[in-house]
Amino acid sequence: MGGGQTDLPREPRGSTAEGEGGALARRIRFALQADRLKGVVRRTRLVDGSRHENSAEHSWHLALLAVLLADTAGPEVDAARVVRMLLVHDLVEVEAGDTFAYDAAANLGRDERERLAAERIFGLLPEGQGDELRALWEEFEAGETPDARFAVAMDRFQPLLLNYHGGGGSWREHGITRAQVLRRMAPIELGAPALWAMVLDVVDHACALGWISPDP
Amino acid sequence: MGGGQTDLPREPRGSTAEGEGGALARRIRFALQADRLKGVVRRTRLVDGSRHENSAEHSWHLALLAVLLADTAGPEVDAARVVRMLLVHDLVEVEAGDTFAYDAAANLGRDERERLAAERIFGLLPEGQGDELRALWEEFEAGETPDARFAVAMDRFQPLLLNYHGGGGSWREHGITRAQVLRRMAPIELGAPALWAMVLDVVDHACALGWISPDP
Repeated sequence: MGGGQTDLPREPRGSTAEGEGGALARRIRFALQADRLKGVVRRTRLVDGSRHENSAEHSWHLALLAVLLADTAGPEVDAARVVRMLLVHDLVEVEAGDTFAYDAAANLGRDERERLAAERIFGLLPEGQGDELRALWEEFEAGETPDARFAVAMDRFQPLLLNYHGGGGSWREHGITRAQVLRRMAPIELGAPALWAMVLDVVDHACALGWISPDP
Repeated sequence: MGGGQTDLPREPRGSTAEGEGGALARRIRFALQADRLKGVVRRTRLVDGSRHENSAEHSWHLALLAVLLADTAGPEVDAARVVRMLLVHDLVEVEAGDTFAYDAAANLGRDERERLAAERIFGLLPEGQGDELRALWEEFEAGETPDARFAVAMDRFQPLLLNYHGGGGSWREHGITRAQVLRRMAPIELGAPALWAMVLDVVDHACALGWISPDP
């Protein structure tokens, strides 16, 4: 095994040559912080049920889905821009952690925590680039542009796939109800309308199998 | 925990409505196979040294680096296309597994294994889309176009970052020599020339620290 934390040269090479704020060193510092997203664990399990998913591999899966399903979005959606948005949409979690979508209490204060995290993480980058990526994250969070709506749809559709094809996953684990799932999935109808019939069909079938709880 | 493997409805919903070869069902089937990339373990460790990286989160990290470092490539590189290439560049590993770059014996027969894997995995998709993504993978493997050269450069540069900022990582673990590292990193000089000075500097420093072995 490699050395412990104490002998890590955390400062990217080239910092001195370029000066402390050298553009390349700042990007490397950002990329190294981003590495921590691989340690942020979500509630969703992999399809094979072996473990929970982390936010880095989740981001990859969403970006891949956006490529695959680009034609389920409206014609005004720029799929390449959505992919960039999805690559950075969870980065604030390296500071703020993942918040389980169905945990209302944990979601209190989430916005403020994530806003501060965004300042820190995107603030590592050279100004123009930091601003651009932070703006993509804000657009995703607001969910109001066609690009953001499609990105959010992917972010809802992917856990549905994993839960359904993984035998119930976090729905069963946490006793999630049909109304909760439908509320969570609603943005798909707007952002990727061509997927909506499949979503309803999956939810119906998962209810019939007892994987999603009936509404009280 | 969800149910075991036996009660998994592996067939995507909508297969019947669209027929067995329905385009949406085929894409979902592909996305579910892609999920297995999260279980393909590489030799590189995360920066914090806690565990080895898997190929899905590695793909995410490369795509993010391609966004961050687009201006280190030549002007003829289409960064959005490189991102798409990187999202699919390791998918054959869900069939063929990851092959350690420094293990010459394991690399024998790798091409043929991966070609067969590509047929199976990209063959799940509707024809046009499968052809497009498979062509991106082949372009990456050949490494001859400007886009592929930049993508390959990211694929070499990221493990260098993880090894160096993680205290030596797989270099130390496997006693990799300076000549081996420089041979492996060589494509960076061509694909992302603006990074090359930093690569040489990192290799020199890692040698001085004893993390990379001297050449015999």
